[in-house]
Amino acid sequence: MLKVALLGCGTVGSQVARILLEDGDSLAARSGARLELAGIAVRSMDAKRDVDLPRELFTDEAEALVDSADLVVELMGGIEPARSLILRAIRKGASVVTGNKALLAQDGPALFEEADRNNAELSFEAAVAGAIPIIRPIRESLSGDRITRVLGIVNGTTNYILDQMDTTGAAFADALAEAQRLGYAEADPTADVEGHDAAAKAALLATLAFHTPVSLDDVRCEGITKVTAEDIAAAKDSGFVIKLLAIAELVRLGDGDGAEGTSVRVHPTLLPREHPLAAVRGAYNAVFVEAENAGQLMFYGAGAGGRPTASAVMGDLVSTARRLVAGAPGRTDTATRRLPMAGVEGIFTSYSIGLEVADQPGVLSRVAAVFAEHGVSIEAMRQTLGDGAAGAGNSRAELRFVTHRATEKALAETVADIKNLDAVESVTSVLRVEGV
Amino acid sequence: MLKVALLGCGTVGSQVARILLEDGDSLAARSGARLELAGIAVRSMDAKRDVDLPRELFTDEAEALVDSADLVVELMGGIEPARSLILRAIRKGASVVTGNKALLAQDGPALFEEADRNNAELSFEAAVAGAIPIIRPIRESLSGDRITRVLGIVNGTTNYILDQMDTTGAAFADALAEAQRLGYAEADPTADVEGHDAAAKAALLATLAFHTPVSLDDVRCEGITKVTAEDIAAAKDSGFVIKLLAIAELVRLGDGDGAEGTSVRVHPTLLPREHPLAAVRGAYNAVFVEAENAGQLMFYGAGAGGRPTASAVMGDLVSTARRLVAGAPGRTDTATRRLPMAGVEGIFTSYSIGLEVADQPGVLSRVAAVFAEHGVSIEAMRQTLGDGAAGAGNSRAELRFVTHRATEKALAETVADIKNLDAVESVTSVLRVEGV
Repeated sequence: MLKVALLGCGTVGSQVARILLEDGDSLAARSGARLELAGIAVRSMDAKRDVDLPRELFTDEAEALVDSADLVVELMGGIEPARSLILRAIRKGASVVTGNKALLAQDGPALFEEADRNNAELSFEAAVAGAIPIIRPIRESLSGDRITRVLGIVNGTTNYILDQMDTTGAAFADALAEAQRLGYAEADPTADVEGHDAAAKAALLATLAFHTPVSLDDVRCEGITKVTAEDIAAAKDSGFVIKLLAIAELVRLGDGDGAEGTSVRVHPTLLPREHPLAAVRGAYNAVFVEAENAGQLMFYGAGAGGRPTASAVMGDLVSTARRLVAGAPGRTDTATRRLPMAGVEGIFTSYSIGLEVADQPGVLSRVAAVFAEHGVSIEAMRQTLGDGAAGAGNSRAELRFVTHRATEKALAETVADIKNLDAVESVTSVLRVEGV
Repeated sequence: MLKVALLGCGTVGSQVARILLEDGDSLAARSGARLELAGIAVRSMDAKRDVDLPRELFTDEAEALVDSADLVVELMGGIEPARSLILRAIRKGASVVTGNKALLAQDGPALFEEADRNNAELSFEAAVAGAIPIIRPIRESLSGDRITRVLGIVNGTTNYILDQMDTTGAAFADALAEAQRLGYAEADPTADVEGHDAAAKAALLATLAFHTPVSLDDVRCEGITKVTAEDIAAAKDSGFVIKLLAIAELVRLGDGDGAEGTSVRVHPTLLPREHPLAAVRGAYNAVFVEAENAGQLMFYGAGAGGRPTASAVMGDLVSTARRLVAGAPGRTDTATRRLPMAGVEGIFTSYSIGLEVADQPGVLSRVAAVFAEHGVSIEAMRQTLGDGAAGAGNSRAELRFVTHRATEKALAETVADIKNLDAVESVTSVLRVEGV
């Protein structure tokens, strides 16, 4: 018999409690031990009146509950007291299952080391992409391969908003309002739409994929608030779809020739419509992995929600219990090296650039010259004339370029110099392109 | 240091040997132990002259090699001597990694039990869908959930052929010839096109998903040789694509009300074009899993090939090595119950039925009456008139029905009775429909 302490009883926690109470026999058969729910720690006893679970399970003494447990499931979220309680559990040798991406993106590597030092196991499948098994495939199934790139749609709220914009032509603000009305976005949507939630997951994915510690501070992050209906329409015209991607890559440092490093970033990205990730609609999540031998893999499913996330927690719980019964908890820390983070000169990517220009002869030639100066090659260009007729003078035209791959540094310098051209009214959008 | 014995040196085996020889340091860092390739057992030493691996590794004394190893990688394929060598390894406590689906589909449950009895671990990620991590997600990530259905495109050859037929309108024989020319199909394509390869994988997936032993004999299997260009075109017209699916389902026995059982089958299946599996093109594989809490998940990637399959083998090898270093090999057997196999009365499905009928008034009404007699509801019907003009008498028409879900028994009886109608010239196709 293994005693399970549950910390937190929100959407996911209450599902986990229900499964532990209702599926005891099958869980015991699969674990090799009966998983007994020893108690549920909540901050306020009053808040739990309406939850349909036995009252006597609830306690506000989290530390005492942790001290009595063999397995601790942390689903409170946030940094404290989650962090202290997890450390307390680990230090007395209890194994921990958590879905706390914010905490792991901040302190993951330190917690992983502490777990191994204390012969405890720390699992966190629920922290990235809800029910989709992605942590275990990366840590175990691909442990004999060399992962070179991970591209993830790991935030359902932003995927829903971008999908709505793509399908209906809606502006960002309207799609966000609709998402809020339907409960896909929170009243304060900042963490989702600014990409912070995706950035935490990107840090975790990179840490595991590349066997090196990566924290939230290492992630370059840009949200979707500046993506316009025009960007989406222009992308659509050219056979692309815009997705918020969490990207983790192995790169060569120093203009692409030097030592190995990593680049981890979150930003709106143009993807060709035939890319497997382009078909991920609504609030679904998917993670696309490229490995040297395995080639291209994709993992797809529900990225959030109480029941899907509870499924991930229960998978960790049963797997950990099996190993405890066998007498050897698994190792958590997979960092075997410390790779440097790439600066802008180490990142190779393509840009989609939108410009508003004066509709005068010679403008395209001047803009093209700036690309050439920086060694950036243009893959495609489209010109849309403004209100005035072509060549009528004083009217405006819109130019959209897609570049071939170049260093992020060369691209950024190109954009800066284009902005300074007299004939360029404004740079209306700069979006990165992947999957071409 | 852990000694690894490699049995077999074909496309996958030679890749595994290369990775072990070339990536020693990173594998050691991830495993916690150096993986030393102790030798490669081959049937004939002569056959290995052209392989670019050190000659001294090869031996034709497989038993002696097995006896010297901590970990045995079996990639010979076939039943014997693979089975005896795996048992020999297990009984002396060595853990085994294999990609041998034929052997596991025949003897899996017995081998799993034997492994656990001897405290050895038996892993087989490479046996289903090549590089795609599917075994570990089902066994571990979903171990706290209840999987209700698995739909897999697990044979790249047949997916390539059906995809070609769908894209180009080719007949089966022509698409097969093209696949053979390109190396996607073997000279004797029986195992692929008759569904036997997919059936072995279906048995394994069902065993793991439902925690019950399922062997190849339990799988109802129908290949793609009877799928015509007309079937594909008719499906396309109605918004469907035809895929060879491996299907494993939890069902209710006895007309759907009784105890729980399983149904495991392989057959060409109509899928709506918007289903995630419909987008799996060419020789790619994908496995779609439905679980009570996780909802719908899909795993996608390369289903075959030396390097992708070697990636799966190496993932098993490193993961097993980690557990050996920790002092506790994992448990292999996940069977916790014995579910009965459903007969035709326990399987609920939809049919697409094609009929060639005499073009006379009242035929549709008589056919529809037969559906009604068996309680089978028609979802859609299309009539295509034959060469003679409508109502001209003596000419033929084609009717295509898609039914709502009904028991397989009622559907089979409906088809049998329709065949006996005077106005029905022939039943040209009977295909099952999923995902609607």
